[in-house]
Amino acid sequence: MTNKITTNGPAIILVNTQMGENIGMAARAMLNCGLSDLRLVAPRDGWPSETAQSTSSGALSVIEGARLYNTVAEAIADCSFVIGATARDRDMMKPVLSPETAAHAIHVADTAKGSPTSALVFGPERAGLTNEDVTCCDAVLTIPLNPDYSSLNIAQAVLLVAYQWYRHSNQSPANTDFIDRLAVTDKDTASKEEIESLLAHVEKALDDTGFFKTPQQRPTMLNNLRNAFQRMRMTVQETHTFHGLIKSLHGKEWKK
Amino acid sequence: MTNKITTNGPAIILVNTQMGENIGMAARAMLNCGLSDLRLVAPRDGWPSETAQSTSSGALSVIEGARLYNTVAEAIADCSFVIGATARDRDMMKPVLSPETAAHAIHVADTAKGSPTSALVFGPERAGLTNEDVTCCDAVLTIPLNPDYSSLNIAQAVLLVAYQWYRHSNQSPANTDFIDRLAVTDKDTASKEEIESLLAHVEKALDDTGFFKTPQQRPTMLNNLRNAFQRMRMTVQETHTFHGLIKSLHGKEWKK
Repeated sequence: MTNKITTNGPAIILVNTQMGENIGMAARAMLNCGLSDLRLVAPRDGWPSETAQSTSSGALSVIEGARLYNTVAEAIADCSFVIGATARDRDMMKPVLSPETAAHAIHVADTAKGSPTSALVFGPERAGLTNEDVTCCDAVLTIPLNPDYSSLNIAQAVLLVAYQWYRHSNQSPANTDFIDRLAVTDKDTASKEEIESLLAHVEKALDDTGFFKTPQQRPTMLNNLRNAFQRMRMTVQETHTFHGLIKSLHGKEWKK
Repeated sequence: MTNKITTNGPAIILVNTQMGENIGMAARAMLNCGLSDLRLVAPRDGWPSETAQSTSSGALSVIEGARLYNTVAEAIADCSFVIGATARDRDMMKPVLSPETAAHAIHVADTAKGSPTSALVFGPERAGLTNEDVTCCDAVLTIPLNPDYSSLNIAQAVLLVAYQWYRHSNQSPANTDFIDRLAVTDKDTASKEEIESLLAHVEKALDDTGFFKTPQQRPTMLNNLRNAFQRMRMTVQETHTFHGLIKSLHGKEWKK
């Protein structure tokens, strides 16, 4: 299975990774985000790895294209901008970047250099990168998370920063109109239970009055109605008004 | 093990999830991002789940606090803003949000409502949410990824959107100074191999001249030097200049 890579981005370098699963899942996260340059520094269980293949969920192009190195220095030799992932503060006077700023920095560095020559380096599962490995880096990546629970799997760390990198080159519209409408929503916005209760009332009234000509059209029409009602973002008061309206049209009290 | 939850955010609702691992890993991703309100709609293998516990990597507070429901409607009854994750286009006239805009929309909706009453709904592994489930939502979440390889594990989808939500309330500085410096980097920026070659020259010359008074201080001092050299972001020309400078000071030619 070959997957077309849409963009050229930073190399992902995994150092002394212990578990093949983590390499496989990192490859998957890379391909999700259009990255293809995987470099492995002395993976614990050797290479190639069946576990990495089977956990890559079809991202075989990345797994099969992975290059193997003995040291971090060899793996980054052709790079000119290198970021090392580290959860701990290393006190090395290096800029500390979030995934967002790391993605931005990689774009800026690659644009300035004229070609992609950046890399993100991730250490082994428990210990992380050695101080010596970190000294080879221009900056460190620290993912800002809940300070009481910040442990993150390697593949998840790769995903977060690769996603930010991908988004940097593939912006989508920001739905500002929709969000602006949410901002003016009243505190009194109806809960989903209140909306469902109104829909149940509508449904009952429509059934009573023979609105659905065939049983086949019923689910589709109800889905369309539900979509339209959700889009209204009614207040609780408005649901009451609608209950009154349906009661009035139908000529009957409604009981759940 | 209890973990303090730092913030109050959207509920994460997992519908008919097949694999306990995915619930466990989603719980971990939630706690990473300060979320705690996990709701499960009819998980395939029942609840509680030992697999979910063991794969949650210590996010037990989320697993143990999870609430169980029979239907999506019940799970979202107390919510007033609901986003359904869907990879496929549903053609339902609902706003399509990216993780970033979904996070923004949740913040805006919760602020307007005065309390957190939002939810993100994720369907089962293969099929995703049913059209009927999607009709209950105000908007849909679609994660923009490599169009040729966009399949994402549930826990990874939860992580991407939860991370965006967390970042919305915990912004960190953007390192603009550092990035501005990258922008003016010359195309001629040295590769890491050229920097290492210079460092090897420096190291040899310092060894020759008895710079390191004790063997203990050697690695630390070399790390400090390497950090300083990385920070300079030299051009290739500058590495040549430095090689010349060291040769001149040392009075000897250098051979690798």
